[in-house]
Amino acid sequence: MRLSQYFLPLLKETPNDAQIVSHRLMLRAGMIRQLQSGIYNWLPLGLRVLKKIESIIRDEMDKAGALELLMPTIQPAELWHESGRYEAYGKEMLRMKDRHEREVVFGPTAEEVVGDIFRKNIKSYKDLPKNLYNIQWKFRDEIRPRFGVMRGREFLMKDAYSFDMDFESAKKSYDSMYKSYLKIFKRMGLKVIPVQADTGPIGGNLSHEFQVLAQTGESEIYYEKELETLLLQDEIDIEKLQKYYAAADEKHEQQETKIPPHKLNKTRGIEVGHVFYFGTKYSKAMNIAVKNNKGEDVFPEMGSYGIGVSRLVGAVIEANHDEAGIIWPESIAPFKVGIINLKTNDENSTKMCDGFYGKLQEKNIEVLYDDREESTGAKFAAQDLIGTPYQIIIGPRGAAAGKLELKNRRTGERVELSPEEALAKLI
Amino acid sequence: MRLSQYFLPLLKETPNDAQIVSHRLMLRAGMIRQLQSGIYNWLPLGLRVLKKIESIIRDEMDKAGALELLMPTIQPAELWHESGRYEAYGKEMLRMKDRHEREVVFGPTAEEVVGDIFRKNIKSYKDLPKNLYNIQWKFRDEIRPRFGVMRGREFLMKDAYSFDMDFESAKKSYDSMYKSYLKIFKRMGLKVIPVQADTGPIGGNLSHEFQVLAQTGESEIYYEKELETLLLQDEIDIEKLQKYYAAADEKHEQQETKIPPHKLNKTRGIEVGHVFYFGTKYSKAMNIAVKNNKGEDVFPEMGSYGIGVSRLVGAVIEANHDEAGIIWPESIAPFKVGIINLKTNDENSTKMCDGFYGKLQEKNIEVLYDDREESTGAKFAAQDLIGTPYQIIIGPRGAAAGKLELKNRRTGERVELSPEEALAKLI
Repeated sequence: MRLSQYFLPLLKETPNDAQIVSHRLMLRAGMIRQLQSGIYNWLPLGLRVLKKIESIIRDEMDKAGALELLMPTIQPAELWHESGRYEAYGKEMLRMKDRHEREVVFGPTAEEVVGDIFRKNIKSYKDLPKNLYNIQWKFRDEIRPRFGVMRGREFLMKDAYSFDMDFESAKKSYDSMYKSYLKIFKRMGLKVIPVQADTGPIGGNLSHEFQVLAQTGESEIYYEKELETLLLQDEIDIEKLQKYYAAADEKHEQQETKIPPHKLNKTRGIEVGHVFYFGTKYSKAMNIAVKNNKGEDVFPEMGSYGIGVSRLVGAVIEANHDEAGIIWPESIAPFKVGIINLKTNDENSTKMCDGFYGKLQEKNIEVLYDDREESTGAKFAAQDLIGTPYQIIIGPRGAAAGKLELKNRRTGERVELSPEEALAKLI
Repeated sequence: MRLSQYFLPLLKETPNDAQIVSHRLMLRAGMIRQLQSGIYNWLPLGLRVLKKIESIIRDEMDKAGALELLMPTIQPAELWHESGRYEAYGKEMLRMKDRHEREVVFGPTAEEVVGDIFRKNIKSYKDLPKNLYNIQWKFRDEIRPRFGVMRGREFLMKDAYSFDMDFESAKKSYDSMYKSYLKIFKRMGLKVIPVQADTGPIGGNLSHEFQVLAQTGESEIYYEKELETLLLQDEIDIEKLQKYYAAADEKHEQQETKIPPHKLNKTRGIEVGHVFYFGTKYSKAMNIAVKNNKGEDVFPEMGSYGIGVSRLVGAVIEANHDEAGIIWPESIAPFKVGIINLKTNDENSTKMCDGFYGKLQEKNIEVLYDDREESTGAKFAAQDLIGTPYQIIIGPRGAAAGKLELKNRRTGERVELSPEEALAKLI
């Protein structure tokens, strides 16, 4: 993509209304624009990141055997009456009436809808276990939306729902998602700690939140130091992992942990995922039953598993930035390479830039070529701000000698190379 | 994908409430399930098709230089007051109030929102022309939703918006979309006729609907017979094309055409796309201005370009089916290949099936392997119903001789081949 043809409205000034760094950087880097409180337009650069995160999640969900479907945003209120959550959900649920005066809601989550699909289409134990997921926009009418996409009202969520015949099988489904979540966040370059979470009236310890370690996080979390070492391993032993202590502030009780304080890390986290086992709560309430091998009706054991897809964009930035801007992990960078033409009116420079741009495109490497007539400073600042992992810098002196510079955004390292050498490093 | 692990609730009975063939087949093939009137869940098989159609559209839009962004579903009512359409849109627009009593709507289209993005971020003629598009769910509260996804209330639309400095440039943007649309529909194996459409109070002839020829279509269309020949050519001369007569019933006037009736085809069509030039209607109403090269404010000339993404799934089926079920064009088939194991308890058959399944997966060929313990008849019927373009049939007799059968869903042709020969044909 040539920057002169792109839509990338960068801001020089720091927006006043943005309190945290990810919000500020997403606005400055032209990734998002607010449409109204807690509701954002995703501009081309932001959308590229959102889609990459989405596809990593999709890939790991599919590998775990979950099946993707898509549920609508508008749900009938009657399903919420049936599950008993219509009143309980309160003002966070956006409610409305259609032209025929039927009550509908903008789905804040989809246990009811997926339960309805399940009970109408799956009748036998032979079809279980099943894990159905979708990646769809949700709406929660937060009273005070803030922190940009980190706590928005309309947000993109991956929500999965598992159905099993008994607890043992349900626990396997739970652990499979738990494991997938660790893989997903690792692929995004995130350091994530799964912490025990409140399960509310259901009890049990089968609820974990996945917290990105970031100083700007909303929750305080406590975890045994050894957990970090364990999480770095390639093959993760979940049973072992789940035995270590890790809890968010609302759950943490120093007296009760029995873990000596010097073995505990206390830090801040951003919740990006939540896995939850809730047994037969919804299957009983909504009469979701299947026949077992004796022909008897059984209520499946259910779990739900959420990832905040749009929130992750902010969370990754919270964990990956410096004074100059965003530092994208390569797996979700909007463009892998940026090309900076230091002098657009120098024939050699422009020729070398155009040539290198063409080569990258041939190799299907995503590249943003800054061909604008702007100052050198503005071009450096733009690539640093938007966080392109690799920058190719081409100017008259180097071009005359057949050389360019390759800069690594994260390390700041700059090396002089021939175009061929640079290309080899980028493939 | 092994069918035993998939979620594919096929229906043997024809659903009573489905009036047209695409609706019936989408229900029977387990592609969709109604959540409520005009609102559908997309089950895994249906979602695969929807996503393929989406990605063909995205690919051609990107090739045409349009830039993808994503606008939220919930829009502030005030933008609609500004454009003057809040009252005019009537009951088709789903309106609601959020918890702070602010009026919002579920976007039925996005001229207002894209206009707002544009005016806040683009200030100079240097940034024009621009074509911004998104693929997002829309809501139109049809009084009588029907025909399944063909006239639903919540539907997926690709909507693009062009901004140009003058009419000449706007016409180029229009023609570029017109040309892309022809390519998009061609890639889906659809025969589409662009017909002149009503432009309403704006006048001019810059509005075309793209109609899929299908006997079950809602509109009656008239077009010069020579158009068909022209549309079959690889390189399409748009100027020439646009000179031929083609109109939908509400626009057609036999007396005024001057085309003798024997040169006209009269048939039925399903509208799947619409391109529309509306000049400065919205830029004036919403004060969307950019500076020209003299520093003066200019209202950009705008156009909008829609494709009914979810509707296309139905339209393709209307144009591609037989008694037994759907016949997918390869480019959008949910799975390219189906494997039918005629006898799951025969060791040779199962071994050959498993082996061929593995080979296809290695080659990244999408395959649905019917490994269920079902009758041969049920398996044949299932693959025909869901419209898999190529079926691999493996039974004890063939397997013992190292042979399988390859069936072409469209032609019905069946050939006996070795697995290697079959694989070579499918790659």
